[in-house]
Formats: sequence, C-alpha cells, structure tokens
Amino acid sequence: MGEFELLAKLRERLPQDGARVLLGSGDDAAITVPGGATTTSVDAIVEGVHFRRGESELRTVGRKALATALSDLAAMGAEAGEAYVVLGAPADLTESDFLALLDGLLELAEETGTTLAGGDLTRAPALTLATTVVGHAPSPEQLISRAGAQPGDLLVLTGEIGGAAAGRLLLEDPSLASTVPESTAERLCARQLDPTPRLRSGRALATGAHAMIDLSDGLGADASHLAEASGVALRIDASSLPIAKGVAEIAAAAAREPLELAAAGGEDYELLAALPPERLGDASIQLGEAAETTLTPIGEVEAGEGVEIRLPGGKPLATQGYDHFAEPAEP
Amino acid sequence: MGEFELLAKLRERLPQDGARVLLGSGDDAAITVPGGATTTSVDAIVEGVHFRRGESELRTVGRKALATALSDLAAMGAEAGEAYVVLGAPADLTESDFLALLDGLLELAEETGTTLAGGDLTRAPALTLATTVVGHAPSPEQLISRAGAQPGDLLVLTGEIGGAAAGRLLLEDPSLASTVPESTAERLCARQLDPTPRLRSGRALATGAHAMIDLSDGLGADASHLAEASGVALRIDASSLPIAKGVAEIAAAAAREPLELAAAGGEDYELLAALPPERLGDASIQLGEAAETTLTPIGEVEAGEGVEIRLPGGKPLATQGYDHFAEPAEP
Repeated sequence: MGEFELLAKLRERLPQDGARVLLGSGDDAAITVPGGATTTSVDAIVEGVHFRRGESELRTVGRKALATALSDLAAMGAEAGEAYVVLGAPADLTESDFLALLDGLLELAEETGTTLAGGDLTRAPALTLATTVVGHAPSPEQLISRAGAQPGDLLVLTGEIGGAAAGRLLLEDPSLASTVPESTAERLCARQLDPTPRLRSGRALATGAHAMIDLSDGLGADASHLAEASGVALRIDASSLPIAKGVAEIAAAAAREPLELAAAGGEDYELLAALPPERLGDASIQLGEAAETTLTPIGEVEAGEGVEIRLPGGKPLATQGYDHFAEPAEP
Repeated sequence: MGEFELLAKLRERLPQDGARVLLGSGDDAAITVPGGATTTSVDAIVEGVHFRRGESELRTVGRKALATALSDLAAMGAEAGEAYVVLGAPADLTESDFLALLDGLLELAEETGTTLAGGDLTRAPALTLATTVVGHAPSPEQLISRAGAQPGDLLVLTGEIGGAAAGRLLLEDPSLASTVPESTAERLCARQLDPTPRLRSGRALATGAHAMIDLSDGLGADASHLAEASGVALRIDASSLPIAKGVAEIAAAAAREPLELAAAGGEDYELLAALPPERLGDASIQLGEAAETTLTPIGEVEAGEGVEIRLPGGKPLATQGYDHFAEPAEP
C-alpha cells in the first residue's frame, strides 16, 4: 500500500474543515484566515521513547499524540484550531494500524474542535507522530505565557496529579494493581495513556491568570520553568497537592513516595497558573462552568527565585535525584 | 548533555524574532499575529530514508529539512514566516552535531526571512527532522493552490530539472563524475543535498498563476496532482524541458534516459504553474526581477484529464515503471 493510497483513505475519513480553514489537507499547504492572534506548538511521540506498541491501542496512541500537543494550547488559554501531523511509519505498520491511529487523532480532534488540516507521511524505523497545533484568541493579550507571575499571586492547579506516574508503574508491573480497585487501576493507566488536554479549563483560567504552564515534565520541573520565566519564587504546600486516588497505594506497593510521583512524575497534563488572589473566586466559577475538572490552590508566588515544595512540618521536600527535576532554590 | 542544556544552547543562537512573532521559542507555544491569510505545511526527513549521514554535512541536512518545507510555501506564492522543528535525535548525535544541524536551519531561515519560533527535541532511533512552516499573504486570494488551471493556460516551469536525480546517481556511484567537469558534478550533488525553495519565484508567479505546485515527486507525478486537482489535462512538450547541465552525461554513464531523470526523478523543488498566456510576459519580467531563476514554457492545459509528455516526434513518453510516476492519461 503506497503513500498516495493511504492519503486517499485518510481524506475519505476527514470531516468538514473548521470555519477558519479555507483549504485543508491535500494541496501543497493548507490555507487559513486566523483573525486575531495565533499560538503554535509542536510535540512528538516516538515508539520506544514515549509509548510502547502493545501497551496501548494505536487508536489511543493517536489520541495521545494530539492530546500532548493540545495541552500546550490549553496552557496558553487558546481555543484549539488546526493540527498538522507527520506520521513516521515503520515497515510493519499495516493499513488497519494506520487507520486506527487516524481514528484516534480524528476522535480527539472532534472532541476538541480541532481540524486536521494537513500532514506528511514518511517511512521511519520507529512509529513517530510529530504534531503541530495552532490555537486562536481574539488578541495576543488574551494568551497567557509562562512569564508574568507576580509576588502575591496564588498558585492554582487543575485536576489531580501523580496519576500518570502511577499509571506508568502499573503498566510496567501489573502485579501492583492488586492494591487498588480495578476501576482505579484502569483510571490511573488511562491518565498515562490517554491524557486530557485541559482546553476549557485553560480558557477559563486565561481570563485572570498572570502566567500558566501545563505539567508535562512534572510539577517540580514545570513550576521551575514558570518561576524562571516570570523571575519569581514559588512556594508550594505539599499537603495541599491534589493527589489522584490510588496513587498512595501504588506508590506504597512500588516502594516509592506518593509525593515523588505527584511532584516529579510528569505527564499529568494538568495546568499550573499564577492568579491574583482576588481572581480566585471568578476563576473557580468559570472553571466550574467549563465542567472539565477541579481547581486547587497549592501555594503562592514570592519575590526571589526557585521552587520550594514544603512538607507539613515545614521541611522542604528533597527533590534531588528525580529525573527531570528542578534545581533546589538558592538559599 | 540533557534536553534543557541543548535548548539553552539553541536559544543563545536564535536571532531576533520576525515582526509577526510576539513570543518565540521557549514557552508552551509561540504567539504570532498573522494578519491576512496564513498557509501551513509540514515535511519530514528521516535518516536512511531521505538522507544518509556521511553523504551530507549535518549543516546541509538542517538546510534541506527547512528547504523542502519552504518549497511548499513557495508553491502557494506565500511569504515565508515561521518554522517549528521537531528534532528526533539518536543517542550517537553529539552536541556539535546538534549545533551543526541548527546552524544549517538558522542559515536558511535567515536567507529566507523565516523565524524559527519553536520546536521539540526528543530521542529517536534515526535522526529525524519534522518541519512545520507557516507562510503569509495579505489575503487568501493571493495564495495559489493546485486547483484552478484552465484549458488554454500555459504551463511554465522555473529553473532546471533532472539535476537532483543526477546528483542522487553521483552520490551512489562517484565514478560517474568522470563524465562531467568537477564543478558540474558538485552542482548536481548540491541540487540533491541542498535544494533552493523558490520563494521569490513563487511570489512573482502568484500574481498571475491559476494553479501552482512544487516538484518534489517528479514532474510527471506532480503534474498529475495539478491536473487532477484542477480537473484538466496537461500536455507537456518533452523537447522544451529545461534539463540541467550534466544530466545527459550522467544519465548516459548510468545507462539511464535524461528525460527519465527529468520527468520522474523528483526532488528538484522547482515550481510548475498554469498561467493565462497573456500573463507570461509579466510573469517573466517579475521572475527576472526576483532574480532567482529562469522561467520556461513547457506545455499547455487542455480540457480532459491526465498528463502526457510528448517526445519531439509526437510519440508520448513511456512513463510506466518509474517510481512514484503518475498513471498514464485515459485514452
């Protein structure tokens, strides 16, 4: 089956293009009329690095490829617009594998109002999906970068964390599942394999937030990125962290600390935002209306630099030695 | 050397962002204010599929990754705007390899007025560069798709063809180089390894063209794409094809036909456009002012379907059996 035949099958499945797309997939390039501001991010997932075939259905791999890219648009507070996907296909990828990946992509595209407006298909030694997403806002001022957090701001976090890391442990050692109900184990694995980009929450938070980032590397590392970009220090109260149900049990069974999974595990794709305290009420109401997930205050922004995650006794959480983890704050 | 260190080195080298880019590389997503219409294309090159390390310096691989993507914007008649690059790096890619790739990307970006506005860095089993490029035009009407060619239009081609295919033969069998002067052999290899996106020519042609496409798959295949998208037939006069200097000698030495290299070889990245005959004079003048390359009339658009490449005696060129080659026209 050649490239042109696969592309023809792809085009048969594409729904109608979004309103901004004048010319979609199939020409040299797509044509869009954005209006206002656009925000663009790229994200790649590679077999053997970010996922393993067999651990996840290819439909779910397709969803995750788009979800991790859309999560960056959520962190800007943008509306999802268009996606462009490079598929690197190894020789053993069958036509039905290809269509399963495409179905996953198109499923999440429909759920999020994203148009698959173009792509490229190539041979590659490992299954690779590189996804570019373009989001929109009426003006650039309505998009929220990592910079802009101010001393006195509250730090708020959407949803729950630690679930994706617990899911990773479960996928690596299924015997750990005996410590939690089956539905909890399934939910934790889904956090790892099929993350939800918090697009509605991101738009709700964007109306008041000074700075925002999505948690792909883990709370500690991503908080450090936000602190550095904003030129501020972040103090996080470990006891306030919304840790996903079942993480404590899985961590105990794997001889790990639940806080370690929550703060350094990564891939939860929740949003961390710095908000002026007087905006917390409005933000909570808007997030409630978006009906996507919860909002939890977890700390505050101070003058200085670095990130400190404090345990209940006031002791800073030891953060050294975690993969991807941030440098401790200067004394 | 970790991802964050490499990204820090990358950011040190980035020049100032273009005027449309409000927030460039380093946040969750870039922010741009396009104005008018945007046109977006993605293109990936993979080691072992599109290039071989050792055959080409990594700086040149970086240039080609961007050039093949920009060629699609040239084919729309767009001004180059922003590029976003996913780099899949195998474990043996050193820091200096990474910086050589980056230097090549940034060099061509500067030559073409493109801002490298974002990217993603990941591990991959083979060196992979997936490049998304965004081009701009004041309005969507000023962008030229593959559809729109009309019976009576002239077919025109920028530059020369066959050079990239001859360069591929030379790289595979360096002994063929003895049949041409050294400078000719070098030029043919450069056509293969370091193609030029015809951005200025594309903008010049866009003022009059009804349809346009870039030649990545080869004249026969790409002409078929244009014919199909426009719902017309294309008649190409083989004797008028501007075949690059040295192609005849390399083809003879390799026991191949020069016309085969020109029509089915691919990767020349020249532009094929359908123009109303009364626009040819203006287009030639504008292309001359763009001072990028030549313009050659090679055939015409007729009612019907399919592509026919006619040899001087009036005999259609046998096109079967070439890789990527188009189906012959219906009788």
